[in-house]
Amino acid sequence: MINLAEDQKIWVPWMRRSIQLALLAEGRTSPNPLVGSIVLDSNGRLVGEGFHSGAGNPHAEIEALAQAGKKALDGTIVVTLEPCCHQGLTPPCTEAIIRAGLKKVVVGMVDPDPRVSGNGISRLKDSGLEVIEGVLSQECESINREFSFRVRHGRPWGILKWAMSLDGKIGLPNGCSKWITDIPARHSVHRIRSKCDAVIVGGGTVRADNPLLTSREKLDFEPLRVVFSKTLNLPQSAKLWDTKIARTIIAYGPEGDESFFSDLPNGPEKLRLNSNNPSELLSSLAKKGCNKILWECGPQLATSAIEANCVQELVVFVAPKLLGGMSSMSPLNNFGFESISSSYKLQHSFLDRKGEDICWRLIF
Amino acid sequence: MINLAEDQKIWVPWMRRSIQLALLAEGRTSPNPLVGSIVLDSNGRLVGEGFHSGAGNPHAEIEALAQAGKKALDGTIVVTLEPCCHQGLTPPCTEAIIRAGLKKVVVGMVDPDPRVSGNGISRLKDSGLEVIEGVLSQECESINREFSFRVRHGRPWGILKWAMSLDGKIGLPNGCSKWITDIPARHSVHRIRSKCDAVIVGGGTVRADNPLLTSREKLDFEPLRVVFSKTLNLPQSAKLWDTKIARTIIAYGPEGDESFFSDLPNGPEKLRLNSNNPSELLSSLAKKGCNKILWECGPQLATSAIEANCVQELVVFVAPKLLGGMSSMSPLNNFGFESISSSYKLQHSFLDRKGEDICWRLIF
Repeated sequence: MINLAEDQKIWVPWMRRSIQLALLAEGRTSPNPLVGSIVLDSNGRLVGEGFHSGAGNPHAEIEALAQAGKKALDGTIVVTLEPCCHQGLTPPCTEAIIRAGLKKVVVGMVDPDPRVSGNGISRLKDSGLEVIEGVLSQECESINREFSFRVRHGRPWGILKWAMSLDGKIGLPNGCSKWITDIPARHSVHRIRSKCDAVIVGGGTVRADNPLLTSREKLDFEPLRVVFSKTLNLPQSAKLWDTKIARTIIAYGPEGDESFFSDLPNGPEKLRLNSNNPSELLSSLAKKGCNKILWECGPQLATSAIEANCVQELVVFVAPKLLGGMSSMSPLNNFGFESISSSYKLQHSFLDRKGEDICWRLIF
Repeated sequence: MINLAEDQKIWVPWMRRSIQLALLAEGRTSPNPLVGSIVLDSNGRLVGEGFHSGAGNPHAEIEALAQAGKKALDGTIVVTLEPCCHQGLTPPCTEAIIRAGLKKVVVGMVDPDPRVSGNGISRLKDSGLEVIEGVLSQECESINREFSFRVRHGRPWGILKWAMSLDGKIGLPNGCSKWITDIPARHSVHRIRSKCDAVIVGGGTVRADNPLLTSREKLDFEPLRVVFSKTLNLPQSAKLWDTKIARTIIAYGPEGDESFFSDLPNGPEKLRLNSNNPSELLSSLAKKGCNKILWECGPQLATSAIEANCVQELVVFVAPKLLGGMSSMSPLNNFGFESISSSYKLQHSFLDRKGEDICWRLIF
């Protein structure tokens, strides 16, 4: 709201409403962004509302225009994201806006998608419409942080999560780790999963913990479950091999021994990669429509993911317990830092208590 | 305030004022408790206020009665702690109250000191005074938690503090640990020190960090600095050997080689113990007047202190940094737990951000 031009201020409440509409589809639009839109008639009265409800479904502007019908003539459309000007799964929104006879378009943020990226706005201006840009742009960007990151970097926004004791241990020296945190913190993990497109573990976690990795019905559809295995030496029986609840992908690099597949059931999909670099896995997942993924892996893969810039956000649960033990079960492996000042420094995002435990979210 | 009897409710504001007075001397009364008192005349008007300002100085009741003078006649005295009935460094307060001609005594909590412990109240009742007990008793107990603990257990309340990274490390694999936390968190440690009667480190910390262990002028007088060394193999030169700023005690068990003392300056006091058990050290410090001590030691001594029940409170600073490293510099050594349910579980007391870092205080 700082230095917002006078002609923008009147649009703030309508953009806020559009953001509210966009958020109605949170967690369900990947690989598409969240978008909300409202239409005002020539007298400034609200005549249409819409939001994008998922890939393949109509865009927010089309929904709002459909509701407005002929009342849109000489009116204004407010939309959180620049209208698209290309044929995707649905036709370009710019053409629908022009056809509806609107006079004014109020845009929250420019679409980072290189097929749009200012071209939508140009198309509207060239057609004689007034375009007002940048209204609540930060808020509009924040609801699509992961979409924008994926479009700009070609890989999904990565979240790494771990749960540790007060003395920084993710397990006892004997390997026991169930349960470090209490039920509210574990529910919180299920909710985080429900907002991610995929959850990734390493082969070691499958062997040691045999996890299920679902949102426990926190969401209509479950995130994709990904096992990233170097060797493919995986257990013949595992909860993840049952793909009735959720899809599972087994991803592996050049060292993976494909003969192991004969011992595994057919449910999980196979994804062969050219390297063990986590960023290659994430590029593949971006192509499969993932905007946001969750690393729920052990120290070795977590360390590799951080070093490969595949972690943008960290969620650390700390339990009020002391496990002890010098030599085992820390969250991360050695990075080889020689001084504290060269270590990774993160930015605070959110701190809260979850039952007895605390949850600290930070951004890299 | 739950189920407080009607005849107690009218005393709540006066007891609250007495608690405020008591807290004026916070951190300066050890080995004595914090005590505040007010005197009302026979018409219920405030005629005297007092607090205990330090061992050897008059008790709170005496201060309040002195201010009230003859106006105390037929009046009421409100005091946070049961008046003493024994000759200590100063005469018994019960006798002064009786002499002043008061009619009523309102008491916050019973004195846990076995020399008093109800005898003060009995003495007053036997002399015909009305005694109202238990007004804001929890609040009165909470300001003297450490005093009461020392009286009941014969050793001071122990606080253990450490600073670690998000991944639970108190240093890099190469030993570097300066600085994990930022300036506000380090100031916070100085303030914690200023409220403790002694700060304890092990010989290893003196060798590795050469700490100063002062409150950095947060307090008029500095806490006692204690080095607990098994071997007495200490550096000839160390900041702690300069006792102009604060006293230093070198405590050692039966394995301590006293011939090392010839290499050390004379400033520090020597304290020979019969064992290396931290509880013996703490018993000695209780006899020296310590109600509350701070462990600022490395993993080995911290682990021993916890196992010997010499830690009642934990203060953990967590910095938003990732140091990495599996095998070194964790806050604690192995306790030998076989399951998570057998590990130490603490109670949340206080969680706050200190600059970029967080501070979590918990009670054992």
